[in-house]
Amino acid sequence: MTLPAPDRVDRLARLRDRLAPLPDRLPAVELRARLPAGFRAGATRAGIKASGGLDLGVLATTGDPASVAATFTTNRVQAAPVRLSRSNLVASGGRAAAVIATSGCANAATGRAGEGDQVLLAEGLAAALGVTPELTLALSTGLIGSRLPVERIQASLRDLVAGGLSTDDSSLGQLAEQLRTTDSRPKAASVRISLPGPERGAIDVTVAGVAKGVGMIHPRMATMLALVLTDATVEPMTLGAVLLHVVEQTWNQLTVDGDTSTNDTVFLLASGTSGAAPLENGAGALEAFTRGVEAVARSLARQQAADGEGATTLLTCQVSGAADDGQARAVARAVVGSSLVKAAIHGHDPNWGRIAAAAGNATLAGEPVALDPDRLAIAVAGVPVFDGEPISFDRSALSKAMAAAEVLVRADLGLGTGTGEAFGCDLTEQYVIENSAYST
Amino acid sequence: MTLPAPDRVDRLARLRDRLAPLPDRLPAVELRARLPAGFRAGATRAGIKASGGLDLGVLATTGDPASVAATFTTNRVQAAPVRLSRSNLVASGGRAAAVIATSGCANAATGRAGEGDQVLLAEGLAAALGVTPELTLALSTGLIGSRLPVERIQASLRDLVAGGLSTDDSSLGQLAEQLRTTDSRPKAASVRISLPGPERGAIDVTVAGVAKGVGMIHPRMATMLALVLTDATVEPMTLGAVLLHVVEQTWNQLTVDGDTSTNDTVFLLASGTSGAAPLENGAGALEAFTRGVEAVARSLARQQAADGEGATTLLTCQVSGAADDGQARAVARAVVGSSLVKAAIHGHDPNWGRIAAAAGNATLAGEPVALDPDRLAIAVAGVPVFDGEPISFDRSALSKAMAAAEVLVRADLGLGTGTGEAFGCDLTEQYVIENSAYST
Repeated sequence: MTLPAPDRVDRLARLRDRLAPLPDRLPAVELRARLPAGFRAGATRAGIKASGGLDLGVLATTGDPASVAATFTTNRVQAAPVRLSRSNLVASGGRAAAVIATSGCANAATGRAGEGDQVLLAEGLAAALGVTPELTLALSTGLIGSRLPVERIQASLRDLVAGGLSTDDSSLGQLAEQLRTTDSRPKAASVRISLPGPERGAIDVTVAGVAKGVGMIHPRMATMLALVLTDATVEPMTLGAVLLHVVEQTWNQLTVDGDTSTNDTVFLLASGTSGAAPLENGAGALEAFTRGVEAVARSLARQQAADGEGATTLLTCQVSGAADDGQARAVARAVVGSSLVKAAIHGHDPNWGRIAAAAGNATLAGEPVALDPDRLAIAVAGVPVFDGEPISFDRSALSKAMAAAEVLVRADLGLGTGTGEAFGCDLTEQYVIENSAYST
Repeated sequence: MTLPAPDRVDRLARLRDRLAPLPDRLPAVELRARLPAGFRAGATRAGIKASGGLDLGVLATTGDPASVAATFTTNRVQAAPVRLSRSNLVASGGRAAAVIATSGCANAATGRAGEGDQVLLAEGLAAALGVTPELTLALSTGLIGSRLPVERIQASLRDLVAGGLSTDDSSLGQLAEQLRTTDSRPKAASVRISLPGPERGAIDVTVAGVAKGVGMIHPRMATMLALVLTDATVEPMTLGAVLLHVVEQTWNQLTVDGDTSTNDTVFLLASGTSGAAPLENGAGALEAFTRGVEAVARSLARQQAADGEGATTLLTCQVSGAADDGQARAVARAVVGSSLVKAAIHGHDPNWGRIAAAAGNATLAGEPVALDPDRLAIAVAGVPVFDGEPISFDRSALSKAMAAAEVLVRADLGLGTGTGEAFGCDLTEQYVIENSAYST
């Protein structure tokens, strides 16, 4: 029996459909820092960063403490600011009046002395603002193992608060600038969404975020530093559920180098000053708000990936056809986390064998993800390259198309309806050079 | 109350003891290929590797089929030679008369056509040797997604077997040479151990292994290709238990780039022709044999790590004081697998903060490993650098000491009696260059 020759044109058309980019679910963001109502901020130079520049930032509420949700690194070695923020959030029941951010020194692996330094800063911040220390949070990144210059920071802190924190958008931009360490540019994103008013009608609410990258970044419950602010009214418990969902879709899907830092922190603060009705579980408005937060988080995660240490290309992997969304996300993470895939992207090399191998290595909570190579299909930069077996394509044209600011790898597992995406970057000689001589 | 100033000299001496290299448990190996009795081998050039050189190898027994134990990649995308070897071992009950090794083409992700190619080679090998195809095994590595040149290989295979396989040690050396792809040198190790004779007295037995690296290497049940041979007498079930133990201590502790290949295979073949008594579970002789196999496997794994793509330095991490051996091995793996640690080793940078952070990220079967930063101690190249808090050391002298062919990172978790080690290499610009343009 001879089977009919497959209709190649038809097969390719079906394959292109199957491997089309995942549809947009989120509102469009602006790539700028917009300070939501109810917050004030400022940054200064305290002399922590050897390279100079803004290295001390303060965010405070204008009135009552904000609701807070937070996720922290899962690294067993947790920096002093992480430990302090965790314990303050427990003491305050998920409320905060201020955040102190320092960059250039991680205050990690500094023992009890380092924890003491962080307590002194919290007390200094609280005294300057006239609140209790339990209502403060701390963010820091930089070199692990070195001590904070506490006296210099305390003096700068008093000056900064005495000079007056600002409610202008530019003050949030300054915070984005201050958070930078090896980041080549500040990272910010904002979105305006319409929520129901307390009685009827709609009220515009802002969700805005700033973040830093760009090394020691790998998805594990929280990655790097990000501060997301909103003037919506949301209780801490509800805000926590929103953040958990958002982090799972965005920051946990980000990897630069496979290393999870000691300082990773995401804070989501809601001032509740927009006048919109309080958001409650199960309501449609909460869903719209969650999508807004996710849009900001996704944008920040993509900015962090694009600015990964030494990176020249944003690598996005979108997966469909997985058994469930969690497995799709795991496969997407495995692909953007593969050193060999990352190096191939850098070389504009459509080496799909490495993509298939990376997908085949995906695990979720220690268990292998369901994947059948015979059902797997892969496209690189819009060009199908594998369909259960090698298929022919114009290698040189595809290599040219890969010389872009972003390369999308699409994989369809052909098993179920699960979808997910992950963000990373290419692996370059520059990454190695930057990281071969950092502390010395 | 003022505590007495700690005795720094005493503390450092205790710390040095705690961070001394782990004691040797294994017999010393020779870095050469010694073909054990009962085997014959040969290699030739079939034109698979574009770069030329030996690319087809055959190993066969001189008499009865050998007992076989095997471990394979855990990648869900498994190459055709892996699938064929698995199914033949089931059919033969753990026996094999011959192994065919091809290099330059992985025969992975080639669909059913690629599986058919592998079956043809098995039939060709079986016909040339006068055995049944189920008694053959296959090993291959190289580019994923390309097809084997079956006709050329069949012709070369017939010539190779007709010309006569050799029982000289040099023929095993040729196999080591033939397995190479991006390896800069062949990898071999041998050990002679004394086992009880069938009645009384002792008989010398050989354990010898050859292996290839050097990219897409990451510990997950088996890594890369290795062929370990012995003339000891061991039934397949017992041999399987030996291999499982050995792989857990050695190859599963090896990482070059965090990618687990589609073709990873370790075969352990026992010809049973030494005249020594059969090795049985629970006996002291089996323990001596296991240590011999482990010594060969450990040497090969270290050779593979040292020759990792682009590597200039062998990175060994030894961990003590873990809750158990499995957790110690997990921490050691996390340290040698960290891109940031690997880059720091390349830069001769004693950046122990990255080592602490990598250790803090260690997981075992998806669960975090027990680690308390206050009890953690770290030494780099023999110099203590962290003892629950930063300690002072001569950074420039240590940096000079790190310019060595091997750098040992020692970590003691201070929690229990678990020990373990792992092997990796530095991350260099050359790794990125080699892997940015491989398939194109």
